[in-house]
Amino acid sequence: MKEIKVGIIGFGTVGAGTAETLLKNKDVLEKRTGVTMRLAKIADLDITSSRGFEVPQGVLTTNVDELIDQCDIVVELVGGTKIAKTFILKALEKGKSVVTANKALLATYGAELFAAAEKTGADLCYEASVAGGIPIIKSLREGLVANRINRIYGIMNGTCNYILTRMENEGADFDTVLKDAQKLGYAEANPSLDIDGFDTAHKAVILASLAYGQWLTLDDVRVEGIRGLSIDEINYANDLGYRIKLLAVIKNNDGTVEVRVAPTLIPQSSLLAQISGVFNGVMVDADTVGQTLFYGRGAGRAATASAVVADIADAALNLAHNCKRRVSPFRPGKQFDMVAPQGENVSRYYLRFQVKDCPGVIASLSAILAKYEISISSLIQREVAPGTASGIVPLVVLTHAAKEHSMLAAIDEIEKLCICAGKAGMLRIEDI
Amino acid sequence: MKEIKVGIIGFGTVGAGTAETLLKNKDVLEKRTGVTMRLAKIADLDITSSRGFEVPQGVLTTNVDELIDQCDIVVELVGGTKIAKTFILKALEKGKSVVTANKALLATYGAELFAAAEKTGADLCYEASVAGGIPIIKSLREGLVANRINRIYGIMNGTCNYILTRMENEGADFDTVLKDAQKLGYAEANPSLDIDGFDTAHKAVILASLAYGQWLTLDDVRVEGIRGLSIDEINYANDLGYRIKLLAVIKNNDGTVEVRVAPTLIPQSSLLAQISGVFNGVMVDADTVGQTLFYGRGAGRAATASAVVADIADAALNLAHNCKRRVSPFRPGKQFDMVAPQGENVSRYYLRFQVKDCPGVIASLSAILAKYEISISSLIQREVAPGTASGIVPLVVLTHAAKEHSMLAAIDEIEKLCICAGKAGMLRIEDI
Repeated sequence: MKEIKVGIIGFGTVGAGTAETLLKNKDVLEKRTGVTMRLAKIADLDITSSRGFEVPQGVLTTNVDELIDQCDIVVELVGGTKIAKTFILKALEKGKSVVTANKALLATYGAELFAAAEKTGADLCYEASVAGGIPIIKSLREGLVANRINRIYGIMNGTCNYILTRMENEGADFDTVLKDAQKLGYAEANPSLDIDGFDTAHKAVILASLAYGQWLTLDDVRVEGIRGLSIDEINYANDLGYRIKLLAVIKNNDGTVEVRVAPTLIPQSSLLAQISGVFNGVMVDADTVGQTLFYGRGAGRAATASAVVADIADAALNLAHNCKRRVSPFRPGKQFDMVAPQGENVSRYYLRFQVKDCPGVIASLSAILAKYEISISSLIQREVAPGTASGIVPLVVLTHAAKEHSMLAAIDEIEKLCICAGKAGMLRIEDI
Repeated sequence: MKEIKVGIIGFGTVGAGTAETLLKNKDVLEKRTGVTMRLAKIADLDITSSRGFEVPQGVLTTNVDELIDQCDIVVELVGGTKIAKTFILKALEKGKSVVTANKALLATYGAELFAAAEKTGADLCYEASVAGGIPIIKSLREGLVANRINRIYGIMNGTCNYILTRMENEGADFDTVLKDAQKLGYAEANPSLDIDGFDTAHKAVILASLAYGQWLTLDDVRVEGIRGLSIDEINYANDLGYRIKLLAVIKNNDGTVEVRVAPTLIPQSSLLAQISGVFNGVMVDADTVGQTLFYGRGAGRAATASAVVADIADAALNLAHNCKRRVSPFRPGKQFDMVAPQGENVSRYYLRFQVKDCPGVIASLSAILAKYEISISSLIQREVAPGTASGIVPLVVLTHAAKEHSMLAAIDEIEKLCICAGKAGMLRIEDI
């Protein structure tokens, strides 16, 4: 049986999970592929702390260059966009097959990395960079290769989905649940990457690029996170038959590609709305297959390792069968005319105003929306509970599809009305 | 760009969908793979009727041998286990790459076909044989290659799921919905293959074989269909928080593999229970990735074509990169000791008895269950609506896990009691 030497750089959570899986499921991997993937080297600054399983002698090293020289497949699990990039470029320069889970690096320096891989004919695999253990990259570019992709909807950040699920189930507010999530290890001490939507945006860049054949960057994505999302919005959405998810939306409208990440109302009855807690789900809507959905754990030691090892197996099969780059790391082949300019994005909207409980409110507000050609699909003003003396009531409006710049201008004008108290809440709606 | 010649045998629904997709999405396929897949030949007895799109001149033929000789990839979409097998063997003998959607053929003659492919080093791809457009085979054996598979649950027959969904939503009985489904084209004039569970069983054979490394046959599967399923069971299950689905269950319990197809109660709250109408869903539970779910259209011209063309692209990439059988059509590598013998299957059960409304009923019935070491998890006897004069009431029992032969023996004994009127209803429960 052909033996392929695997080296892992970064012996953290995912690195340890990957090493453990290679050791523990060695027999299964050999039976399924006919190739031996030998864990030859693991490089880390800390090679003495226990990671909960036994590492064979001679495998641990602090010398990354030695690892790159001695291994056929180099697995980068350091994270970040600095030293990780250096390691990957070094490995690619030597023609080594590279596997990475580094979404931030790919979203930022994808084009540079692909060019480096092409130069030496190297493989570069990154299944684990999107949606953890779900084989969404393989499914999108191989399983659905025959399709023009209409839309992709992704719940791809477990931290945010966990927070939103708990807010909805417990009626708790954002700050309380975030603090608890941090205590439980579901959110980082500095949670910005997750809750401000950037982690999801990195993944959206990768999926959109693969779907439409041109490598995009974060600049092409409109990003809003869930920080400070009010429990009121979740409750109102719920009353109207919707659930709020941090959703990546990737669309191709007649040649105009739109990529955005935002807390979004989706119908409670949709399958995506059922994805709760730390789980991820990606729905792909395409011209031939129709609607498909892929669900699973989007993060964690073992689930991410499942995707990393799948990439190792793919790269190992390519080496064993002498067909590197059989599926190119990224094959340009643009399938759109332009990325939608800021403000030109079109979607339905959920608006929540705090208004004075007096005559003429709905008339003034709806006149402004009409002026901007924004059509109302439903409007709810509830009576205030007795004893609430403020005289301020929430007015919730759902609109039909409108352009973002019209919506922002209308809201700006409405907020200036004397009947309006404080900032309006604005969220997008997707009728999946 | 390397050109690969594709020939399709069988110009029926899926054949036409495949040909149309190859023509319509030619540009996308080339951009994504770097290979031209040219529709070179289509063979059918009827080459004059329109299939709704224009076929290039010289492509249509009635001569299968000519097609096999002239094409690099032979796509068998004739169906059935006779002439289709002859065509596939002929193509494999000549070393041609073969793509098929023929689940019945694979479930029956898989071992023979794989041997023929191995002899000439040919590729044999069959993504479309299971769950239509869902790339479940690629996901299972490549995306989840690092995993030991604990369980697979599949809703894999659109006809049955459509019937069950309508029965539940409308409270309609089986025969009425079946007749309507036949009128609407969702069920065949002879619906046996679907409603008696054999179509699902064919697919279960394929998934179980891939999961556990030995090619099984229909003899290894316990098959029950949904024919004549009473609306009462659906309603009682509903009351208890369950939904009834025709479920393929594939399990590996410490080396004993169990494959069965049966109408099964699953919790309403599970994601699988949300899969309604003609859609399919496959849940894979594995040691590294945890729980994953794959959802999409399980049948139909376009969705099935999506999977067939994905196989064509895989085979074409193998030809272009000179790496045929990079992923073997089937690689033996047994991961279990034995298939569970008949009667040794273990599961929870739903039982419905029609009993006389008199003292001692529950005592007699529960004594018999206890004798067979079957433990009751819940029991419901409802009051009869006033005016129902028969004196017969339904008694519904849910049990903890029990062996099938114990359960059958207990039911047999209970049915003989004088308090019992008619046959008992028995269904399995899976706590997903």
